[in-house]
Amino acid sequence: MKNLKHIFEPQSVAIIGATSKEETVGKAILSNLLQSNFNGAVYPVNPKYKSINSLKSYAYINDIVDEIDLAIICIPTLAVKLVIEQCAMKKVKGIILITAGFKEIGDQGKKLEDEIIEIAKKNKIDLIGPNCLGVVNTSNEIKLNANFSFRMPRSGNIALVSQSGAVGVVAIDYAQQQGIGISKFASIGNKAIIDECDVLDYLIDDDETKIITMYIEDISNPKRFFEIANKAALNKKPIIAIKTGVSERGATAAHSHTGALTSSDTAYDALFKQCGVIRVTTLEELFECAKGFTCMVEIKGNKVAILTNGGGMGIIATDALEKYHLKISTFDKNSLKEFKKVLPSTASFTNPVDIIGDADVERFSDALEIIVKDKNVDAIIVSVTPTIKTDMNAIATILCKYAKENSKIPFLANLLSFEAEPTFIKILEKENIPNFDFPEINVRVLAVMVNYYNWKKLPQLKTPIFKVDKDLVETIFTKLKKEKRDYLTEPESYAVVKAYGMKSLEYSIAKTVEQALVSAKKIGYPIVLKIVSPDIMHKIDVVGVKIDLNNDDELKKAFAEITDSIKSKRPKADVHGILVQKMFMQKGIEIIVGIKFIKGFGHLIMFGLGGTFVELFKDVSFRLAPLSKQDAMDMITETKGYKILNGFRGQGPYDIEAITDCLLRVSQLVIDFPMIKEMDMNPIKVLEVGKGALVMDAKLVWEEQATEKTKIKTETMVSAH
Amino acid sequence: MKNLKHIFEPQSVAIIGATSKEETVGKAILSNLLQSNFNGAVYPVNPKYKSINSLKSYAYINDIVDEIDLAIICIPTLAVKLVIEQCAMKKVKGIILITAGFKEIGDQGKKLEDEIIEIAKKNKIDLIGPNCLGVVNTSNEIKLNANFSFRMPRSGNIALVSQSGAVGVVAIDYAQQQGIGISKFASIGNKAIIDECDVLDYLIDDDETKIITMYIEDISNPKRFFEIANKAALNKKPIIAIKTGVSERGATAAHSHTGALTSSDTAYDALFKQCGVIRVTTLEELFECAKGFTCMVEIKGNKVAILTNGGGMGIIATDALEKYHLKISTFDKNSLKEFKKVLPSTASFTNPVDIIGDADVERFSDALEIIVKDKNVDAIIVSVTPTIKTDMNAIATILCKYAKENSKIPFLANLLSFEAEPTFIKILEKENIPNFDFPEINVRVLAVMVNYYNWKKLPQLKTPIFKVDKDLVETIFTKLKKEKRDYLTEPESYAVVKAYGMKSLEYSIAKTVEQALVSAKKIGYPIVLKIVSPDIMHKIDVVGVKIDLNNDDELKKAFAEITDSIKSKRPKADVHGILVQKMFMQKGIEIIVGIKFIKGFGHLIMFGLGGTFVELFKDVSFRLAPLSKQDAMDMITETKGYKILNGFRGQGPYDIEAITDCLLRVSQLVIDFPMIKEMDMNPIKVLEVGKGALVMDAKLVWEEQATEKTKIKTETMVSAH
Repeated sequence: MKNLKHIFEPQSVAIIGATSKEETVGKAILSNLLQSNFNGAVYPVNPKYKSINSLKSYAYINDIVDEIDLAIICIPTLAVKLVIEQCAMKKVKGIILITAGFKEIGDQGKKLEDEIIEIAKKNKIDLIGPNCLGVVNTSNEIKLNANFSFRMPRSGNIALVSQSGAVGVVAIDYAQQQGIGISKFASIGNKAIIDECDVLDYLIDDDETKIITMYIEDISNPKRFFEIANKAALNKKPIIAIKTGVSERGATAAHSHTGALTSSDTAYDALFKQCGVIRVTTLEELFECAKGFTCMVEIKGNKVAILTNGGGMGIIATDALEKYHLKISTFDKNSLKEFKKVLPSTASFTNPVDIIGDADVERFSDALEIIVKDKNVDAIIVSVTPTIKTDMNAIATILCKYAKENSKIPFLANLLSFEAEPTFIKILEKENIPNFDFPEINVRVLAVMVNYYNWKKLPQLKTPIFKVDKDLVETIFTKLKKEKRDYLTEPESYAVVKAYGMKSLEYSIAKTVEQALVSAKKIGYPIVLKIVSPDIMHKIDVVGVKIDLNNDDELKKAFAEITDSIKSKRPKADVHGILVQKMFMQKGIEIIVGIKFIKGFGHLIMFGLGGTFVELFKDVSFRLAPLSKQDAMDMITETKGYKILNGFRGQGPYDIEAITDCLLRVSQLVIDFPMIKEMDMNPIKVLEVGKGALVMDAKLVWEEQATEKTKIKTETMVSAH
Repeated sequence: MKNLKHIFEPQSVAIIGATSKEETVGKAILSNLLQSNFNGAVYPVNPKYKSINSLKSYAYINDIVDEIDLAIICIPTLAVKLVIEQCAMKKVKGIILITAGFKEIGDQGKKLEDEIIEIAKKNKIDLIGPNCLGVVNTSNEIKLNANFSFRMPRSGNIALVSQSGAVGVVAIDYAQQQGIGISKFASIGNKAIIDECDVLDYLIDDDETKIITMYIEDISNPKRFFEIANKAALNKKPIIAIKTGVSERGATAAHSHTGALTSSDTAYDALFKQCGVIRVTTLEELFECAKGFTCMVEIKGNKVAILTNGGGMGIIATDALEKYHLKISTFDKNSLKEFKKVLPSTASFTNPVDIIGDADVERFSDALEIIVKDKNVDAIIVSVTPTIKTDMNAIATILCKYAKENSKIPFLANLLSFEAEPTFIKILEKENIPNFDFPEINVRVLAVMVNYYNWKKLPQLKTPIFKVDKDLVETIFTKLKKEKRDYLTEPESYAVVKAYGMKSLEYSIAKTVEQALVSAKKIGYPIVLKIVSPDIMHKIDVVGVKIDLNNDDELKKAFAEITDSIKSKRPKADVHGILVQKMFMQKGIEIIVGIKFIKGFGHLIMFGLGGTFVELFKDVSFRLAPLSKQDAMDMITETKGYKILNGFRGQGPYDIEAITDCLLRVSQLVIDFPMIKEMDMNPIKVLEVGKGALVMDAKLVWEEQATEKTKIKTETMVSAH
């Protein structure tokens, strides 16, 4: 268990590489630390100096008599290993390794980094970096600014963890400009020892942090991240994250449809959804959302009241409500009556409430008095354009009064000022009223809050455990292993599907055309023929499939065509026979359910409606196994195709229960058999409500080595729901 | 012809209602005007004063001996009419009417406003307002700040026209904060005389304005707007607009599918697309885009090079390129060779070029020297995170040097600073290099620029004139008028379709079952029967349609069912007979083409693929008639369904030429017959390439009064293409 207190809350700090030379990291770190009035002792370490900035300088860390909690290292790369050994001797507890030139530069650097990791681990030193910017703790009791780029940020309750130093600098600067306060900052660099999960874990228990923001390029351990993020949700700390690398999609070739539609970014997306992490795409959104959550009110619905003195601003807000799927409150009749009593006749009473350009603070107060009492109001946005009549400080004070008296309704302000640092911001902050530059930002932030609190309120639906024939599947995979095959034949796939309680069409395997004729007679025309061979994955490419055969003659002709084609195109294929199946004509809709194993994440499960929905609109959803029932339901409802499943223009409704069931069974299958690498059940025919679903075709690719990696998952991954 | 010179460039200004009383509009206007050092004479008019702010005050405007170009009126509503009469006597040329309380408050105010309009028109006074904030001209020769809310904005080449005073205030404030310079500002209020088109017309010829931004709630005269916007495109002045009221969709009941999918907002969207106006949804985007265009470089492609000293910023920019459909330049081999020579080995040479944290100005210069020479680079984004090594002024200077030497490549900067007003901004401005806060903004602005310049480069495809049978359609409408019907029967609709050169299925009308049997024999089974009655629009609702009839018996039964049903459900309907039509089985894809008349705009034409594409995904496109060939092509290609038309997974390709032809013919039809109110051709079956398209069903609703309103359109609406 790592202890990040040594990093964030040290009593004593040694700066190895401190200097007074201009334009150096050593000088920047020292002066930032001193300027922040750090509440502990600072020890510069540099053999070239006797003293730096009036502080005694030590040649080596061992020369310091007192205990050292934290060593900050900013010396040339090649000297780092020796210095860390010295830190170990000194029994330093934590290290911030600023120096770059390790893993990020290639094999040479990787080797050096591995050596350092070994020393740190052996000596139980908690190390952050290398190749990082440093850390910050704005707490009044600590005041630690141990970074080399920016001055101490203003204190507040938002923490930032950044994998990129540059982004950290930009983000902190932006927060500063926007008047957003920071509790802790950590630049985690190469993540040699301490990674994002360790910092998250620390922040969850940190009283000064209420909201956690992250810049992520990759997560070292997605499964641990899932656990910790769930813990954050229970501790009521929203996590808002940017995860970059979206453009790295589809780099690897895939065997299946599902494979082609998934990427590591899809896996991140599913991970975030399943543990309630709010994913944003820009730094602006990151801090906007964080600022919104500082109001600390669990919004109870999506009905928004807008109060403004500028008609145009009200219209902009209303358009934004539509765009972000929030509702504009319809006021109670009584409210409208009350408005008439106190507002001028030229005001607009229906939401947005426009109390027009000559509104003064009393009029704002009168209107708010009525709005807060209306039961159809879940949140209030107040947009004030400066006029000759607007005393912004007085308006801010009134907002605070109403926010305090109505602590279950979030108040979001959009007070505009011509000054760079208006005083009303400070007034609003006292009651945690976030203020934004434009009404559309208020709305988009509210939308994020509504979604987050809705997610938190979802019932804790457990993952059901189905009774299945695990042994049968075990047997199939053992056979596969023996035969050194990596994918299942169609009958084997059907067997797996069936063993896990999903229905598929009946079939038989014919070795000869005579057997096929007998089967067809039993099944009844029309029928379908398909080649069965462990060597042929893509049957259609080799004329291995014939459909809509209506009589014996057509069957005979098709049988011959398939066998001839295979003989010429795949003469060496091990042919098990030809599958004879009923041509399914029952009314239904085609869906696709697929699986793809993603290194580090386990199995990603995909759902979508078949045909153009998947292929053209990419209307598919993803979650990681194991699925909770809620996950399975979310996967279905979040696709656009859901409308059709649920009954649309004379089609359906279809058996959505059967789809949920199917998703959960597939989830159980991959948890039981983590060696499954890819799987497509495409199409699955979903029948009308109550009539179930039938797997019409299934492809399954297997890889022995996947096993170890996912085993952990089944033990640790417990959904918040 | 209005002359806005009197408003924007007056030599002498009278302020009627000027005062020294605090918190009044009269005082605010006067002090703003004086503080801006207006280059003309200011005459306060107020009988209560002898002098105000050391200026002689006049009791009445007529007391002023000199000529008055512009009168600014800020007095109580009820006194306005009299004062405008006095202005007319004084032969004032222009008026800014600040006072509110007119049309916006209801009928009483509307009456007053109409009276004022009459006086102004009679006396040829160009009047802006009422209910407005005023106007601004930052030109060094004028320096007119005639508004009551904000100080003189910094001068620049972006003009802003705002229909909302409040939004004007917010926008100007935001521009000021962002360091964006304004050329002209106009708050147009109720648009009694001068509307957005008049201001646009003036701004197009204004040398100091290079880019026009607008906040629009409604456009008074869409057809004139189209003309003027085209003129702006020819003058190379991009227009960027926010149009609010998106949430007012679908307010009216519609007869047709097309009707249900259109709204006035759809019409605005089409209008903007057809005249190249860049539509944005937020004030941030408005000014971001405007700032981007200040670089005044016609970007020639979509390949972008990114240069940065912070890896994370490069990744954010790359993700944004994917999101906004731009390409990351693939560098020439030679460039890579050159990079190796000058950059450290730890730098990343492939785009984004990451010259790492210790990069100084020389390294930026070395990298740029190579990038600008690479032929695969259409635009350059330079993202610089401040470090100990970054001398931002020096880097800005280097950027300017390269931008100047490479005037055909837009340079967009993302230089970050911890200061509120960094000096490098001024350096960048000299070479028109826009600087943004985050790299993702640089990218989204570039995307807008690429789209705009691509639009400008489109060939000028003329609207073809087809040879059609106009007389036949004339006859049908005359009949309709006589019979006081407002929609056509199906045979009449087919006749119109045919008269305008589109193909539909052959049919015949049977009065008796015997006639139907004869027809069926001639046509050949399977056939379709449909009731024909001017009183029945929705045939299916009354069992008026029977499909897939395969023999005489089925036909007889179906015929009886239809006639029985009509007798019981619509006993009073005037039945013309039953339509006998071939059941069409040929391979093809269904599309929908529709028309909806929108007041003020003329006819909106809709295109989309049939079925779920239209109904679920709302995958439709709109343009206003008359369509140019380019418009028709754009309508098809901008839908997602285009991929299917063009050949997708074994389907198609379909006859896209036939769709273009159909759209153009429909366009000609509504131009010839503006009384068409709504029309659905749904479905049209599009066959494979070269085989044409067949109208399978058509509904047409007609309204006599539509005529006058669209006539103007046909005369004036000439597309830029």
